[in-house]
Amino acid sequence: MESIKTHGYGASGSLLGGKTLEPMDFERPGPQADEVLIDILYCGVCHSDVHQVENDWNNTIYPCVPGHEIIGKVTFAGANVTKFKVGDTVGVGCMVDSCKSCEACQEGEEQFCLHPHGPTMTYNGYFIPDGSGYNTFGGYSNNIVVKEDFVLSIPKTLDISKAAPILCAGVTTYSPLKHAGIKAGDKVGVVGIGGLGHMAVMIAKAMGAEVTAITTKEEKRESALQLGAGAVLISEDKEAMAKYDRYFNFILVTIPDPFDITPYVSLLKRRGSLVTVGLLAPYKKPLNNMDVASQGRSIGGSLIGGVAETQEVLDFCAEHNIHPQVEMISIEEINDAYDKMKDEDVRFRYVIDNASLKK
Amino acid sequence: MESIKTHGYGASGSLLGGKTLEPMDFERPGPQADEVLIDILYCGVCHSDVHQVENDWNNTIYPCVPGHEIIGKVTFAGANVTKFKVGDTVGVGCMVDSCKSCEACQEGEEQFCLHPHGPTMTYNGYFIPDGSGYNTFGGYSNNIVVKEDFVLSIPKTLDISKAAPILCAGVTTYSPLKHAGIKAGDKVGVVGIGGLGHMAVMIAKAMGAEVTAITTKEEKRESALQLGAGAVLISEDKEAMAKYDRYFNFILVTIPDPFDITPYVSLLKRRGSLVTVGLLAPYKKPLNNMDVASQGRSIGGSLIGGVAETQEVLDFCAEHNIHPQVEMISIEEINDAYDKMKDEDVRFRYVIDNASLKK
Repeated sequence: MESIKTHGYGASGSLLGGKTLEPMDFERPGPQADEVLIDILYCGVCHSDVHQVENDWNNTIYPCVPGHEIIGKVTFAGANVTKFKVGDTVGVGCMVDSCKSCEACQEGEEQFCLHPHGPTMTYNGYFIPDGSGYNTFGGYSNNIVVKEDFVLSIPKTLDISKAAPILCAGVTTYSPLKHAGIKAGDKVGVVGIGGLGHMAVMIAKAMGAEVTAITTKEEKRESALQLGAGAVLISEDKEAMAKYDRYFNFILVTIPDPFDITPYVSLLKRRGSLVTVGLLAPYKKPLNNMDVASQGRSIGGSLIGGVAETQEVLDFCAEHNIHPQVEMISIEEINDAYDKMKDEDVRFRYVIDNASLKK
Repeated sequence: MESIKTHGYGASGSLLGGKTLEPMDFERPGPQADEVLIDILYCGVCHSDVHQVENDWNNTIYPCVPGHEIIGKVTFAGANVTKFKVGDTVGVGCMVDSCKSCEACQEGEEQFCLHPHGPTMTYNGYFIPDGSGYNTFGGYSNNIVVKEDFVLSIPKTLDISKAAPILCAGVTTYSPLKHAGIKAGDKVGVVGIGGLGHMAVMIAKAMGAEVTAITTKEEKRESALQLGAGAVLISEDKEAMAKYDRYFNFILVTIPDPFDITPYVSLLKRRGSLVTVGLLAPYKKPLNNMDVASQGRSIGGSLIGGVAETQEVLDFCAEHNIHPQVEMISIEEINDAYDKMKDEDVRFRYVIDNASLKK
């Protein structure tokens, strides 16, 4: 098929009257035999979108069209596509391709693909800086072309107007909880109750854990309890923190900016582990190995999840009736939404109604 | 039994003409019904001994008689002692008591005893700062009284003049290797080839791993290979380090002073873990969660091992004919030995011939 005309919102790299994102038209390569064309219905707004368009990781190629929590309908399926047909409701997460041959890909961890370029991310993906490669554009747009191996099935019982954040926030929190083997009765702390954290509370609870929401914000107490937390711990309350000394089997930290890990390490019980997701930068202070060794603890990091794992969390959320709590916006509201996210003023995830791109 | 007169070497807390340790006589409480009196034959010299007598951890109570790698003969057994009899060759490691009732003790991890005082360490152990408690004195002495539950059996095939370091250096490195599930074919890196590291190389090799010794010192290459390392990596050689990018399943770091963990993190392959033993202080620089998360890595700390695990490593070393490489000294040489240890001039562990205390 010929190239596809796409309308979306992206960052050109220069601020436009204080606005990060502006409407833009571009073309996508037409679908190959193993690819599908998807009409995008909804796209979640992730903290990574903000980091990427603002070049916080010093690797942004402009123009940058973010969005990797995509739900849509298949409108065309290449000749060799076997898993999907026109009309299917599908999802696209953080990746659209990978080498498929390295050990990581072979073991279903495409997010750790060992190809020199790593996996092809859904936006700001595989490129060669000299211009001989290509850049990928994400879901703040009306359509996308993706290899069927990187397309997810959306279970019928999920409300598609809310499900998009499962594709990144969901798998990002599900993956470390699953790898930690969280089971009934485990004590799990979730630090940071935002887009990632609110998913983590619901998922850990559904795994049978006793979940404590750990937040700086007293005003999040009620909603954390409603999400399924058994208790809320205010991290700035030193007395309350001391009561949870050596308490948790597992702590998932979803704070997206550099922070001091020290107060959380002592909340871990013997052989407990803490995993940080979201932060892709150094911690604020050096880790004290005295704290870590003194109860045989460990500190890990986790990055999204593989394709199969993304399907797994979609199915898990359907089975446990877990839906992200979203605030629906039209594409014109995206710049305001970014400002509100920076102020942590969102409960808990913005989702773009991509119909607003058709106006 | 009445109190026991003991002759040893300890630190009074003030330097004596540049000498840290001096001869001292003291008394130990006589053995209770569940205790044995041990005539000490050999005592290993651990880096912790130096840290403790120099008050590096701000918790030293003087006088301080170090030594927690003790091998000796039972000369008296209390009425209720069932595991040992007079004449048995036995060992004492880092602990001489613990609460025995907390979850950690119940699960055989007495080193993580949850009693407010923690386990009673072999020296500088349980005390109450106001003086109403007591201080424990270690193995730089001619005898010690220990509860049988904290006494180890020394397998007959071990050479007792060399085995003492297994009681701390051995279990400290065995425990994290065992908890990591190291098995045949795993790629293990050992950073720091000293008292702990040289044990780690031999133990990991005996577990079937392909072991790489990682050191700053070219002059340790030959001995590392002789210990069983398949390769030696000089950590200051950036090109060589780059070749080991994402290579190791597991890295055990035995550097006893603050260091930068960054260059070692990138040597871990996907889902690999690094455990630091020895360092009971903060790292030099903040950990970068980008490095950790990018391959789903984890960073742990480990502290000695439980009593059962200490017996396990003694048996393991006997089974695999692993003996620490030691330099035997008389007690009069101990201050020089400390100086040499600080200069890393020991291959690989000093052991005191405690017969020298009888002169």
